[in-house]
Amino acid sequence: MPRPAGRSGEEHIIAAAVDVMARHGYHGSSIRDIAQRAGLSSAALYHYFSSKQDILVAFMTQATQDHYRLLCEALQTAGDAPADRLAAVVRTHVLLHTERRKESFVGNSELRSLEPRNRAKVVALRDRIQRLFDEVVRAGVDSGDFGTADPAEAARAVVVMGNAVASWYSPNGGKKPSEVADTYVRLALSVVGAS
Amino acid sequence: MPRPAGRSGEEHIIAAAVDVMARHGYHGSSIRDIAQRAGLSSAALYHYFSSKQDILVAFMTQATQDHYRLLCEALQTAGDAPADRLAAVVRTHVLLHTERRKESFVGNSELRSLEPRNRAKVVALRDRIQRLFDEVVRAGVDSGDFGTADPAEAARAVVVMGNAVASWYSPNGGKKPSEVADTYVRLALSVVGAS
Repeated sequence: MPRPAGRSGEEHIIAAAVDVMARHGYHGSSIRDIAQRAGLSSAALYHYFSSKQDILVAFMTQATQDHYRLLCEALQTAGDAPADRLAAVVRTHVLLHTERRKESFVGNSELRSLEPRNRAKVVALRDRIQRLFDEVVRAGVDSGDFGTADPAEAARAVVVMGNAVASWYSPNGGKKPSEVADTYVRLALSVVGAS
Repeated sequence: MPRPAGRSGEEHIIAAAVDVMARHGYHGSSIRDIAQRAGLSSAALYHYFSSKQDILVAFMTQATQDHYRLLCEALQTAGDAPADRLAAVVRTHVLLHTERRKESFVGNSELRSLEPRNRAKVVALRDRIQRLFDEVVRAGVDSGDFGTADPAEAARAVVVMGNAVASWYSPNGGKKPSEVADTYVRLALSVVGAS
């Protein structure tokens, strides 16, 4: 895998690790496999990361932070109406999962492979994403725009529906990411009982 | 792990394999690890299964068939009203995911580890589960009980919401499985736009 222009050494190694781990899992992937995929020697890889765990932590932290940042940006440009705010975060969340399918799979399946302290950090970052959806749904319930009796569970359902897009979406399946996002905005508005 | 009374040798080995694979992944688990967890020698394990792949196939096939059978049974005892039929399958689906959390995790994360022919068989079994939800939702749309404009996507959302219960539900979290199931029945009825 040649390193694309503009991609740092760290980013290139993380991308290679995600490729390898998506196929063989964290425990089934060695530093040597990852280095090979990145077109580096293991020694060169160790210049950037001291262990396989370090690579996983860097990937998980960065991917979750990116995800959170994109959602915040979407809210900043959305209007004030609860339905618009929910539409904005759902659209961003779904588009991200149509684009980063391998990353999502590794992110979800290898949370178990983080050492306890690293895991706690990543889980805290993920909780921020869930809280952001919680707040959007709760605001709509408070204003009377959303009628759900279960705001927290509805918000969780909206997030997991979007996560699952990564597991079934294929660019060859005939649907464009934007069409999938439109559908999920409608579904999310149903879940929260939007008026 | 002692073998409980009434459990066959195959079932006991599958349970041990799920335990080991939930922690280390398929590629990170050896026949020796699985045998050890089951309290057997590797030679004794080979009396039941010829390879790690055989164990994964047996597990995936059986778990998916069980799942499908439970959903069919739920529909047999449900009434004719579309909302009742949807409630019946959602309840069964969610209860199963509160109970079989490790099995669900391995089932979803190790589909990639099935060899192509085995994978095709398991995917076909899974498709039957999705079709069953599709039919329940479609019937409700046809009768005018459900108002969703996206029956197929709504049915998929209902299934994945329930799948995700396995990833967050904890019996120590204060909610009973039946309460979670009640909430998900309400959410599913919202997703399909039940009148």
